[in-house]
This record gives sequence, C-alpha cells and structure tokens, in this order.
Amino acid sequence: MVNAHLVFSSMSVRCDGEHLSILDQRKLPDAEDWLPAKTPQDMISYIKSLAVRGAPIIGIAAAASLALYAAQGHSEADVRKTAMELREARPTAVNLMVCLDRMLAGALDAARLAAVFRELYEEDVAMCNRMASLGAALVQPGERILTHCNTGSLATAGVGTAIGAIALAHREGKNISVWVDETRPLLQGGRLTAWEMGKLGIPHTIITDSMAASLMGKGLVSRIFVGADRIALNGDFANKIGTYSLAVIAKYHNVPFHVVAPVSTIDFTCKTGEDIPIEERDHDEVRGASGNFGKVIWSPKVSPVFNPAFDVTPFALITSWILDTGILSPADVASGAIATLKK
Amino acid sequence: MVNAHLVFSSMSVRCDGEHLSILDQRKLPDAEDWLPAKTPQDMISYIKSLAVRGAPIIGIAAAASLALYAAQGHSEADVRKTAMELREARPTAVNLMVCLDRMLAGALDAARLAAVFRELYEEDVAMCNRMASLGAALVQPGERILTHCNTGSLATAGVGTAIGAIALAHREGKNISVWVDETRPLLQGGRLTAWEMGKLGIPHTIITDSMAASLMGKGLVSRIFVGADRIALNGDFANKIGTYSLAVIAKYHNVPFHVVAPVSTIDFTCKTGEDIPIEERDHDEVRGASGNFGKVIWSPKVSPVFNPAFDVTPFALITSWILDTGILSPADVASGAIATLKK
Repeated sequence: MVNAHLVFSSMSVRCDGEHLSILDQRKLPDAEDWLPAKTPQDMISYIKSLAVRGAPIIGIAAAASLALYAAQGHSEADVRKTAMELREARPTAVNLMVCLDRMLAGALDAARLAAVFRELYEEDVAMCNRMASLGAALVQPGERILTHCNTGSLATAGVGTAIGAIALAHREGKNISVWVDETRPLLQGGRLTAWEMGKLGIPHTIITDSMAASLMGKGLVSRIFVGADRIALNGDFANKIGTYSLAVIAKYHNVPFHVVAPVSTIDFTCKTGEDIPIEERDHDEVRGASGNFGKVIWSPKVSPVFNPAFDVTPFALITSWILDTGILSPADVASGAIATLKK
Repeated sequence: MVNAHLVFSSMSVRCDGEHLSILDQRKLPDAEDWLPAKTPQDMISYIKSLAVRGAPIIGIAAAASLALYAAQGHSEADVRKTAMELREARPTAVNLMVCLDRMLAGALDAARLAAVFRELYEEDVAMCNRMASLGAALVQPGERILTHCNTGSLATAGVGTAIGAIALAHREGKNISVWVDETRPLLQGGRLTAWEMGKLGIPHTIITDSMAASLMGKGLVSRIFVGADRIALNGDFANKIGTYSLAVIAKYHNVPFHVVAPVSTIDFTCKTGEDIPIEERDHDEVRGASGNFGKVIWSPKVSPVFNPAFDVTPFALITSWILDTGILSPADVASGAIATLKK
C-alpha cells in the first residue's frame, strides 16, 4: 500500500509513493530527463555525479530514498547501514547529514521513516517560504540583483533560498532584474539558474564570473543574494567556489551581500570557517566542461589544476544572514546569536 | 626576390619573405595548425576570428601582411585602402593602429614598407626584453605569481609582456610557480597560457577565474602581472575582462598588481579609462565555449547575455606600470608621467 507521506513533487525530485525519481540536472537546460532512483545506491550515485544537486534537496532526496528502502521491507540493520552510506555521499553538505541523523534518531521501521521524511519535506518548503519573505522584503523596486550558483526550486523542496527571495520579489511586482553569473567550473548559474529564471519569467542576463566586478564598478548591481553549504558559529560560511570573490568585490563597492540559508545549514561543531572541510573535485571539471553535449576539454591534459568546490566567506564581509528563523545582523552574529539557534 | 626584412619567425606568426602564416590559436593546445595569410583580407579574418590574437602581435602581423601586399606589386592606392581596412580589424587594440599609422606615414612602396615592418618587429622584440628585465627584477625567489589571459610569445613578436617577466624570472632560477586563471569566456589562460607554460617548463596550476580571491585569502599569491590593451593618460587601462576583478581583489589582500605593456599601448587621446571604447562580443561566447572540439552551448539560447571583451582598471588599484621605457610608480603617474612619454 502506498504511504501518503511518500507522495510529493518538487521541481527536481518526485515520488508517487512507490517510485522515486530525480530530474537529471546535468542535462539541463537542453533536456528534462527524469531518472528512476530505485535504490539508495542509485541515489548515492546521482548525488556524487551531481545529477541531483543543491544542499537542501540532496538531504530530502536521500531521506526519501531511505524511507522507500525501508518501505520495501529491508531489515533495520540494512536500513542503518544504507543511511550511513547516504550520509557520506557529499562531504560538505551538512543538510544531508542533518536529514539522515533525524531519520536515524528513532526506530527504523517504514512507518516512522516515512513520517520523518514528510516532516523534513514540509519543513523545507516552509523554511524556503520564510526565507523568501524575509529576503524579498529587503528588495526595493527596480533593483538589479546578482546571484551565484543555483539556489532555487531545483536545489530545494520549496522555492529555494537565495533564488526564493529573488523570485518572491519578482512575484510581488518589484520590477527586478537578475545578473546570473555562470559559476565555473560546473556552470550551475549559466545552465540551471538561467533556465530557472526563464521558467519563472524573471528578466535576467548571464555573465561570466569575472564580469561581476566590472558591473559593480558601474553601479549596476544593487544587491547580492547567495546560498550556503555550511555556516560556522562565528558567521563564516562555505558556499560554491567564487562566493568569497563576490563578497570581497561587493565590500569594495559597498554592495549589500546577503547569505540566505536555513538554520539546518549551521554546523554547530565549526567555530569558524577554518573548521569547514573543503572538497576538491575532479581536475577535468576545470580543464573543460560537461553538459548535455557530453564532455569537452580545452586545457592541456598535462597541466596541473586546483579545483576546490567551495570557498569560505568570512563574517566581516556579510551584510546579513537571512535564516528561516529571522535575519541576523553583523552585531547579532558578533554577539553569538548563531550558537543560540541550536535546538 | 625575397626581401630579407620580411623573413621572421615568432611563436605565432612567421614569414619566409614570400609566404606569411599564422599559428591558429583557436586550435591550441590540441593542434599546432599554421594557416596561410595570402592576402590582407585573410589576415583581417584571422584577427577578427581570434585565430591570431594578442595586442602586440596583431599589429606586427597586420604590418607584415601589408608589406607583403605591397611587395606583390599592388598600387599605392590599394595599399592605403588595405591599410585602413587592417587598421579597423580589432577596435580596442591600439597597437594595431599605431603599427599601421607608422606604415602609412611615408611612401607606400614595397621597400619602405618592408623596412618599417622590420623596425616594428625588432622594436617589439626589444621592448619585450626590456619589460621582462624590469618585471623579473621585482620577483623574489619562490614567488607564486598569478596571471590573466595570454600575454606571452603567442601574443607578441618577442617573449611577451606579463608572461615575458614571468618567463625571465623562471629562467633566472627564481623557483617561481604560476597560477593560470582560465580567463572566461575565451579561455586564453586555460588554453594558451597553460600551453605556453608547459612549452617553457614553468611550474603552473590552472584555476577558474573565481578561485583567485580564495587563493589570495590564503596568502598563496605573491604578485599579479597582467598585460594591457590600452592605457589612458591618467594610468587607467583596459585589458581582458576579469582584470578589474583581480585588481580589486588584489587591493583587498595587499597583493602587488602590475601592468606590463609597451608605451605603444598608451592612447594619448584618452584622458581616463572612461574614454576607452569597450568592444562587446558575440553572446554565444558566454553561453558556451569553442575550441578544437568545435562549439558547445550550455546556457539556454533564449537567455540574454552581456559579453564585454574588456574592462577598465583604474589607476588607484595599480602598484606599478612596467613599460619598455621603465617602471612608473603611482606617484609618477599621478604627476603626469604618462603624457611625457609621447614622442
């Protein structure tokens, strides 16, 4: 019998209660291919290969995969072992660990796991809505907002984090436009955010990452919204490589720079950004690009490469932290407000 | 009879006195294809399509093409008309105009044009050597130098501008290493500079443009050398898009930021950077990439794009101007030193 808790449909992950599938984000924007995730091992492979990506949604997708695995009658021992494997699929994304720890914190029977999954899913939708309201309220009519990577409906169960705020400001009729930086090396901006802006009907313009400074120098960027993969107790946060670059450039040009992320992104074991481990990825990602066209390489194969997936932006460069529980100012964060959010 | 003045061989342009050819930089690093430039129209097409690129070498290549055209017995009127067409092939590159104006400033017979070409060629080689000496003298043992775009032997008749200084520091045994940023959208760093570093045996690492800030934040960049496409009287300069971004980030991290360019790059008609026209290029360059593999597109074709080829770095961000006539400090430039270089 289908468990109603396992019936859901987000922009990039959906389940009819028995069949879980993910939208292959590697094929966007050319093709909208849905891939079946018949087993948690399929899901691990999709997470590792970035077929499903975005810190919040991979936690939701992994939890759904585990709940379905339990519903298929696997033993509690197998469920626990599988949960640990899912938990390790993407080392920097703390949401993934938080979601699976919630799933593991009780009996591992199918009914409870489906109910916990549903809580996680509904919470993510509600969190997105709260962050979007708080972020959109900052936006004045006619603003030109810059964003990095992809933080929208593809990346969450709901409307997104940074893009959620942007999309709500647009729906509120604020006549905004968006600078979409392409976000090398994996091009989540040029491929995914541009596609999502098109779907939402939001006026936007794609640029290379290196053009943001020039636009800010000309006064063409009023505000920056970015997401976060992990936030430390002092307000430092890890996010897609290139975020720190934008933060430095924004500071120089006095452009407000906001991080939009749920409290679940906070890692209470990290005192500062220095405690956040940074994943280094495959060197061919920098030597070329991949997409629906396959894989191309333009750099010499013998040339060494450095490919950190994330960088750390220190708290001193951040205008505000837009969390689902409210907005924190630099003064709030300096006085230890983040630590008080621990449940 | 072959005119000895027209026999030369640089890394990317060569002539046996009768047959001029260019190394197709679009095919690097995969293939080293030499293309014949039988006519000035061929050369204009190579300049426009970036088969030959680099501000100094396109001036030299265009002058060689004009001298050869005159040697083939074309009328003075045809030579003048062709010179004007060559002069317009790349609007931002002032060297191209300077070289052709030198060719045009006298009789347009084959003998004179070949001799003027030779002067331009030898001057470029000598200028590169002087800039390399001045730049390399600043480098301390063990430095980790960042460079942008491609400014080496591919881009000049000699050892290059910014890369010339880096290559000399390496030949002097200073045990340097180089961060090569890929330089989106046309990837001159990832494709050409990485290839050139390999040819020269210089230790190097390719990064995306968005990683430079993170490296500077960790103290892993000791110095930045970049070239210039055009320098204004107040010291502002235009260079490949992304240069201004690096300059802002370098300023924030107190990393010395040097522009290396010959005096011929100065446009004495531009008071400030605001007077420098900025070419906007084809939008598909940002929507994807091209190389020996052909052309790929990863962004939605319906998404608008902004693709300025250059940005302007203001004088306040520049540590020194390394010219072939000597090094200028900010104090020199502020007191009008650039205007005094006009011949």
